[in-house]
Amino acid sequence: MLNNIRIVLVETSHPGNIGAVARAMKNMCLSDLALVAPREFPSAEATSRASGADDLLAAARVTATLDEAIADCHLVVGASARLRTVSVPQEAPRECAAQVLAAAGQGQRVALLFGRENSGLTNEELGRCHQLMHIPANPDYSSLNIAMAVQVLSYELMLGAGQATVAAPEEREPVTAREMQGLFAHLEQAMLDIGFSDPRQSEKLMLRLRRLFFRAEPDGDDIRILRGILSAAQGRKSMRR
Amino acid sequence: MLNNIRIVLVETSHPGNIGAVARAMKNMCLSDLALVAPREFPSAEATSRASGADDLLAAARVTATLDEAIADCHLVVGASARLRTVSVPQEAPRECAAQVLAAAGQGQRVALLFGRENSGLTNEELGRCHQLMHIPANPDYSSLNIAMAVQVLSYELMLGAGQATVAAPEEREPVTAREMQGLFAHLEQAMLDIGFSDPRQSEKLMLRLRRLFFRAEPDGDDIRILRGILSAAQGRKSMRR
Repeated sequence: MLNNIRIVLVETSHPGNIGAVARAMKNMCLSDLALVAPREFPSAEATSRASGADDLLAAARVTATLDEAIADCHLVVGASARLRTVSVPQEAPRECAAQVLAAAGQGQRVALLFGRENSGLTNEELGRCHQLMHIPANPDYSSLNIAMAVQVLSYELMLGAGQATVAAPEEREPVTAREMQGLFAHLEQAMLDIGFSDPRQSEKLMLRLRRLFFRAEPDGDDIRILRGILSAAQGRKSMRR
Repeated sequence: MLNNIRIVLVETSHPGNIGAVARAMKNMCLSDLALVAPREFPSAEATSRASGADDLLAAARVTATLDEAIADCHLVVGASARLRTVSVPQEAPRECAAQVLAAAGQGQRVALLFGRENSGLTNEELGRCHQLMHIPANPDYSSLNIAMAVQVLSYELMLGAGQATVAAPEEREPVTAREMQGLFAHLEQAMLDIGFSDPRQSEKLMLRLRRLFFRAEPDGDDIRILRGILSAAQGRKSMRR
């Protein structure tokens, strides 16, 4: 179950943190690590801090973009240092781990995103997430190191996996991040074509619509139907040309 | 309650770990740090890794012996990397946190001991402990960094103390059945107008779309946006007439 879970580090600045994450993961029986545009990798400092978990570093996928790193994932969870005002479901680590394990236990692939040391995840990256995970912290000093955050969530995942009873598989065909991105790109283009709005000028609007469709948990057939409707709406316009 | 809990690091070799421990503690609302015969302290590396938790370093008690560091404590718990054969009660972090908080809540002072990076606590030091705490880990790779171990236990302590910052409730405006019906009727008409399908002939399709939007739990704003998009798609058609 734990091998369906991927830790994705986005634009990590300090290679030591990458090593510390690998060490934390391996201690907690996680092994799938992806690095999106790390500033420095491979790195002697990462290997040193990994302290025997260097096999995870050697096997880590390094990608140029977040979309590549999560393309085959069915559930994407973003770690958030702040309590965001946007209405994205935000879970504590224990509750988040239970949901992640339920999905992973059904054979879904899960990505857990951890952002930059200084600035976390961008709004665009948060827009890729089905839900957010927030580790409660001191209101006067909330500055958890990224590897510490990975450690806490991995700890909850390993504990939860030991207790998890396997849920009955849902009969819905889960969709990947790539398919969801395809839907969103199509929606954005269609909204432009029908003259509803210029989505480039309304990031918040697209974020809201992403949230809506993530909550809806469309399966493969749903996606095909929705894109069929979008094509029909666009088709009217091209027919007019 | 948390201010009755002291973290005691015994003969730490790497000053970076001392800094990382301070940072982990402060994030989790702990502040009482004692250092028994650290190899190097104070240290620029410790201050750097503490990243804003340097007030804990400045206030840390440095002692020559363990006995000095725990002299005023009523309960002493030792972190153990290995499952020991010695007949000392050994708890998982969550159970340990509950016991520690029960004692601290009664005004007792509690010391949590973390040993050397390479060799942990000696048998003599373990002999000072009322109980041991063991963080479960990968049986094939059990090599938790000392600051990570402090992080995990501190996290359980803060959660247990109930001082966790509570996530703000979502402020989503619930929608009525009437509003949902309005959305579905509009969707049905729009699908007809853009030539996607004749919904009267595809009851199953509308049922699937209804389920999708029920799962999405749209709020009032979501409904207005969706109906705006539908109107734009229809508008193209009426403009053509």
